[in-house]
Amino acid sequence: MRVALVPTMGALHAGHGALIDQARQDADRVVVSIFVNPIQFDRAEDFERYARVLDQDLEFCEKHGADMVFAPGVEEMYPAPQKTYVDVDEVSQHLCGAFRPGHFRGVATVVMKLFQIVQADTAYFGEKDAQQLAVIRRMTADLNVPVRIVPVATVREPDGLALSSRNQRLTAEQRRAAPVIYRALEASRRLIEGSCRDAAKVREAGLSILREEPQSRVEYLEVVDEVDMQPLARIAGRVCIAAAVWMGETRLIDNVLCEAGE
Amino acid sequence: MRVALVPTMGALHAGHGALIDQARQDADRVVVSIFVNPIQFDRAEDFERYARVLDQDLEFCEKHGADMVFAPGVEEMYPAPQKTYVDVDEVSQHLCGAFRPGHFRGVATVVMKLFQIVQADTAYFGEKDAQQLAVIRRMTADLNVPVRIVPVATVREPDGLALSSRNQRLTAEQRRAAPVIYRALEASRRLIEGSCRDAAKVREAGLSILREEPQSRVEYLEVVDEVDMQPLARIAGRVCIAAAVWMGETRLIDNVLCEAGE
Repeated sequence: MRVALVPTMGALHAGHGALIDQARQDADRVVVSIFVNPIQFDRAEDFERYARVLDQDLEFCEKHGADMVFAPGVEEMYPAPQKTYVDVDEVSQHLCGAFRPGHFRGVATVVMKLFQIVQADTAYFGEKDAQQLAVIRRMTADLNVPVRIVPVATVREPDGLALSSRNQRLTAEQRRAAPVIYRALEASRRLIEGSCRDAAKVREAGLSILREEPQSRVEYLEVVDEVDMQPLARIAGRVCIAAAVWMGETRLIDNVLCEAGE
Repeated sequence: MRVALVPTMGALHAGHGALIDQARQDADRVVVSIFVNPIQFDRAEDFERYARVLDQDLEFCEKHGADMVFAPGVEEMYPAPQKTYVDVDEVSQHLCGAFRPGHFRGVATVVMKLFQIVQADTAYFGEKDAQQLAVIRRMTADLNVPVRIVPVATVREPDGLALSSRNQRLTAEQRRAAPVIYRALEASRRLIEGSCRDAAKVREAGLSILREEPQSRVEYLEVVDEVDMQPLARIAGRVCIAAAVWMGETRLIDNVLCEAGE
C-alpha cells in the first residue's frame, strides 16, 4: 500500500490541486496535511493573518480525491515547548533564508514531524517554493528519511503570476502589477538560453524590469545552483532564477528553472 | 514483528550486553548498530583513538542473540558532507554539553539517521550516558519519531566503576583510583536520601571526595533534573547526580538517579 503525503498550510488553490492530483496518480492512499506552522513564521502578524478556511479546504481535498486530511491543532503538534530543531546548513543560507531568520529551521522541523507521523512513501512539494524544496530534499537525504520527495511544477495564472494563497491579499492595482515578477524571471532566463553565462548580467536583466514597476519593491533576485541554492557568479548546469518581491505589504516569491549546459 | 535497535559505537562490554539482552527479551528481531560516529567527537584524536574491534564485537553480538549487526562505514553514513543537523536545545546545554561543543548535535543527528534506516519499534540506551538518554528522549518526542526509548541500568564493576570502553585506557594506578567517581556520587545521593534539599551541599559532599583523589581532575559534578538536565538549586522530584572526571588523559562519566520527593 503506497501512501502519499501532501503537506500544506491550507488555503488551498490549484497549485495544491496539482500536488494532490500527482499524489493521487502515484499512490494508493493520499493524505493531505493542513497545518499553519507557527515556528516557520519570522513575523507574528504574518502567522496571524495567514488565511484559515478549513471547511473550504476539506471540500477541495475531497474533490481532488484525497483519502484523508490531517489537520492538527497547534497544541497537538507542539504539546510541549519545542526544543528539537532540524537545521539544514548552506541550502538555507541565501535567498529567503537570508531575509527570514528561522524560517527554514521551522519548515524542516515541522516537515520532519509530519514525515514521522504519517509514514508516507512519497511527499509532494511545489517548485514555486524552490528553496523549501531544496531544503527538504537535502534533509531527507542527510537524515536517511525513507520518503521520496516529488517536485511538482508551479501553477500560474494566465498572465504568469504564480498561484499563492498570498495573492488574495493584493489590491486590484497590485494584482495587475504582480505578473512583473514572472516577466522579470523570464527575461533573465532568456539571457541564459541565449548563452549568457554572466550571473551579474542575468540578474540585471530581471532587476531592470522589476524596477520599472512602481508597485514592487525587490527583496532579491538571484541565480543559484538548483541543488545547494548557492548564488553563482558564472552560470553552469541546472540553475534556479529566484526572486522575492514585495507588493505593498505582501511578499511574493517565484522562480524559474533553467539548464545552462557548460 | 517487533524490531529492536541497540545503537553502539562498538568495543562492546557487559553494559552493551545488558542492552542487547533487554532488547532480546522485548522484540522479535534485534539489530545492533556499530558505528564510531565522527560528528559527535569534539576532539579528532579521541575519534582516532576510539577502540575498533569489529570481529570481537560480532562474536559478542552473536553470543547475546542479536539477529543482525549494522556496521556501516563513514562514507556509507555520510556519503555527502552532512548539512542537516538535529539540535536539542536546553537538554544539551549543561554537563557534557557545556564541555563538548557539538557533541549532542552529533549524537542526535546520527541516532535520527539510524532510526530512519532501521525503522525499529524500540531502541535501547544505557543510563550511564544520562544526558544522551535525555537528549534522545526529547528528540524522539519532539520530532514524533515512532520509536519507544528504553533505558537500561548502568552496569558496574564489583568496585562500583561504571563499565565503559574508555576504562581500557586507564593505567593500573588510574584504574584503582577510578571507583572514587561512584563513591562520590553515592555520597551525594546519601545526603539527598537523608533529606538534604540544598544542591550546593549535595555537590560539595561529592566534590570533597573527588578532591581527595590525586589521580582525578573534576570537570563537573552537578545535580540536575532527570528530564531536562537543568542544574537545580533546590532539589525536588527525580534528579540525576552526574559527574565527568578526568583520570590522566581519559575522561570518564557516571551518574546516579535519585527520587527526592518534595
